[in-house]
Amino acid sequence: MTRISIYDTTLRDGMQGEGMSLSAAEKVRVAHILDGLGIDIIEAGFPASNPKEEELFGLLEQESFEHAQIAAFGMTRRKGVAADEDRGLRLMADCFAPVSTIVGKTWSLHLEKVVRVDRQENLRMISESVAFLVRHGKRVVYDAEHFFDAWSDDRDYALSCLRAAVEAGAENVSLCDTNGATLPSQVAETVREVVAGLGPEARIGIHCHNDAECGVANTLAAVQEGASLVQGTLNGYGERCGNANLVSIIANLQLKLGYECIPPERMAALTDSSHLVDELLNFLPDPNRAYVGKNAFAHKGGLHVAGIAADPATFEHIDPAAVGNERDVLISELSGRGTVLSRAAHTGVELEGDKANRVLERVKELEHRGFQFEAADGSFDLLIRRATGDYEPLFRLESWRVIAEKREDGKVATEATIKIWVNGERYVRTAEGNGPVHALDRALRDAISETYPHLRDIKLVNYKVRILDESKATAAVTRVLLDASDGTETWGAIGVHENVIEASWDALVDSLEAGMLPGRPDRVRDRATASGPAAAQPAS
Amino acid sequence: MTRISIYDTTLRDGMQGEGMSLSAAEKVRVAHILDGLGIDIIEAGFPASNPKEEELFGLLEQESFEHAQIAAFGMTRRKGVAADEDRGLRLMADCFAPVSTIVGKTWSLHLEKVVRVDRQENLRMISESVAFLVRHGKRVVYDAEHFFDAWSDDRDYALSCLRAAVEAGAENVSLCDTNGATLPSQVAETVREVVAGLGPEARIGIHCHNDAECGVANTLAAVQEGASLVQGTLNGYGERCGNANLVSIIANLQLKLGYECIPPERMAALTDSSHLVDELLNFLPDPNRAYVGKNAFAHKGGLHVAGIAADPATFEHIDPAAVGNERDVLISELSGRGTVLSRAAHTGVELEGDKANRVLERVKELEHRGFQFEAADGSFDLLIRRATGDYEPLFRLESWRVIAEKREDGKVATEATIKIWVNGERYVRTAEGNGPVHALDRALRDAISETYPHLRDIKLVNYKVRILDESKATAAVTRVLLDASDGTETWGAIGVHENVIEASWDALVDSLEAGMLPGRPDRVRDRATASGPAAAQPAS
Repeated sequence: MTRISIYDTTLRDGMQGEGMSLSAAEKVRVAHILDGLGIDIIEAGFPASNPKEEELFGLLEQESFEHAQIAAFGMTRRKGVAADEDRGLRLMADCFAPVSTIVGKTWSLHLEKVVRVDRQENLRMISESVAFLVRHGKRVVYDAEHFFDAWSDDRDYALSCLRAAVEAGAENVSLCDTNGATLPSQVAETVREVVAGLGPEARIGIHCHNDAECGVANTLAAVQEGASLVQGTLNGYGERCGNANLVSIIANLQLKLGYECIPPERMAALTDSSHLVDELLNFLPDPNRAYVGKNAFAHKGGLHVAGIAADPATFEHIDPAAVGNERDVLISELSGRGTVLSRAAHTGVELEGDKANRVLERVKELEHRGFQFEAADGSFDLLIRRATGDYEPLFRLESWRVIAEKREDGKVATEATIKIWVNGERYVRTAEGNGPVHALDRALRDAISETYPHLRDIKLVNYKVRILDESKATAAVTRVLLDASDGTETWGAIGVHENVIEASWDALVDSLEAGMLPGRPDRVRDRATASGPAAAQPAS
Repeated sequence: MTRISIYDTTLRDGMQGEGMSLSAAEKVRVAHILDGLGIDIIEAGFPASNPKEEELFGLLEQESFEHAQIAAFGMTRRKGVAADEDRGLRLMADCFAPVSTIVGKTWSLHLEKVVRVDRQENLRMISESVAFLVRHGKRVVYDAEHFFDAWSDDRDYALSCLRAAVEAGAENVSLCDTNGATLPSQVAETVREVVAGLGPEARIGIHCHNDAECGVANTLAAVQEGASLVQGTLNGYGERCGNANLVSIIANLQLKLGYECIPPERMAALTDSSHLVDELLNFLPDPNRAYVGKNAFAHKGGLHVAGIAADPATFEHIDPAAVGNERDVLISELSGRGTVLSRAAHTGVELEGDKANRVLERVKELEHRGFQFEAADGSFDLLIRRATGDYEPLFRLESWRVIAEKREDGKVATEATIKIWVNGERYVRTAEGNGPVHALDRALRDAISETYPHLRDIKLVNYKVRILDESKATAAVTRVLLDASDGTETWGAIGVHENVIEASWDALVDSLEAGMLPGRPDRVRDRATASGPAAAQPAS
């Protein structure tokens, strides 16, 4: 089995993406997640290009990693300066990181228009920079920037740049499709010729971007033609359309093409690793992402659901568990009786005859009003129970009121008052909060958590608002999605209303009610003493 | 130049994706957008599989399209039933749509476990169904479901299924990678052998999914091996990880590989078409999407910005205008002085010496607090002006208050009161609204739109809320992004605060102030009579 080295550049090239922001401590956490996956090399950034990077390298030096080595990133020496007098190269040589990756030019357009360096001096810059770092004991990766453009332009010169790096001691020369221009057939042909041109001793790497939506396929093509090191980012983060997505690359190479990228027992950590880094970045994990998305093994059409029941291989290209993901059955207006029955069974409810029809009708009616249950499994579970008439709500609402104000001194304050009935008793409670949802949540919990102590375990973990139908002349409708968690399981709740506070209230109530459903593990609707994390502190 | 037929299945297979919901009238609008792009065939769905589809085919029959033909979708006849007695096939024959696409089995796993049909009967089902539709004057496309799995399993039988369709008169047999299992090298090899096996007369199509993140590359591989029809969806909508994305496929085939898919003069409509259909679906256009995303030609690193200034070819793989997109310079903590100066110049402000530093410091400070200006160009333009000290706000806030309540009768009501100073005069205004933002917006406009009549042209078009740092122990922070438009231009504004209403207020104020900046086209801050669409009716 051919071994492919995985080189992650999430912390350097990935950070160029829109909205990418991590503290030094969070970057260290990402490095540990990558190490836990069995990634070989983690590129951390430029040593000391700014105080944040300095802090990061300081922290990383004190960490120990099971498998991964840290790479520092920099450029070939400046023109006309000796390598050992180049500040950037000296920083890399002095840095603890055992791997030094330096990027250099191969494309004459850049030599002429960007850096204004002549072709011979560029070869010396490559050669002397690599040699300098090798002399300082570094494993050196040479990143040949814009290699595929350079190859189209002048393949002899492009190859001579690679040769300069190889001959100076670079352990790997990585061909970079820096602007993402290249398509798989072109990558395959180029890598084939580079491998032939450099000879069997040279180790080739590949670094792709996704500008033509071919980042993953380009990487596969390069590996199939002999590249043995793959650069990319987790989830494909990166500038413009992103870098090549290591998650899909690893899954494709290892599960479908017979290469070994990471230890086989780590494959099942792909989904959690992908989602965890999204969370650190405050991104909502893309539900449609290949292999690890929530929808990657979701089935909507009735025929698919029936086929899966007969044999998962009928409609699934791999076992979802192989990457730590799971099958999901979506609820939608396209879905038939079978899907609803299957979802109900999943939540522990047997729907007989007429009851299934009532649920289906209710789903259609609510979807027509803007509800979507794909991301609101908690609300859907409640819907099944409410539609079948065997559900007893936690309380009955009489009224609520929220007052928010920004005062003349600039202070912002919010208070919520609720009037509810629990087990025949009326509760009136007022609470302050960071925002309306927080204040309502506190007032509600104040009123009912004595009756339902398990509520203390439930935390609101995400809150999202979108306007539906904003393009329409009729009044727009607001959809609130609220995720709640008890630390083990997470479930979604939805509220739809023209008023964002009412929509939030509905989602809030569903999120708590769903968390108390008897079908959920460890849910007990009694006065048993429940312990766990402190009550939710949702904001907004 | 080889001509490739483009077959869009957004309205059928695309609708299987999570959150995909369109009324019949909206589907007709999508069909016109596709026709405007020069798409050859638009698959509309199953004729009369439900009332909504029936309504759609009724509407489509009355429309005229410049270029596209409508396809109806169905299945091969049921087993043991004559084709002309099969209800589904009769509906297709009777339907006005000139193209009939029928999907059938080729994979014995499905024959055995899903439909329980024997192999010979399956061949008859294919042959008789195609022949029946051809007899009724239809152009027939045969979709060979799970073709690549079938090919791995038993290539002779898979080929005999295709032959049955070709010999019965199907004008195209499309190889479907239904579960998205296949990788580009496998697609290339399979298509090459199918083309050889069926002979030069048969026309091959390709239908890919994105489960291995290779949907686009698989399609390109098939075309390069001889497929002449491409199935896919706009923006890659579809079940699980989506279908192959026609936008990237068309751009790659036409701009990079020399095929003709759509009339060359329509290429520049790709970006608008992609975004418009997203809007109809109430999706936020993915900023990182290849070719058409807002970030597809965005530049963040200082070196890139400098290179682009010297020659766009240094860092851009195509001219953004070729697909109707444009270059963008992003603001971020990684960005240097050059980026900020360039963005400022773009908005008509010359930043000299110290002023640029003040802007940079302010950007860093706000980003630290959770602001992100990539999607909030309006707020950034204001930031530049505020930081440089030459900005006069539209008004000064004294205080605001929002009261929202759900009364005992179930009615929800919201009112907002604002106290502000405009040109030395104090205004106190109260307004009701659908929700807090709507009420605040109405109260504010009530107070200032007499002074600034141009505000009447500005409409709030999108409102999004996310919680930042929800995983952290400290109080979470709410980020509101608000898009406003004057019908020509759209700009984004941002507010960040622990209270969602305060964050919304800040974004609201920025969205109006940014719309009144003198740099914007047609903006005049005077009492000139401004006309245009009615004032905004934002909800929430």
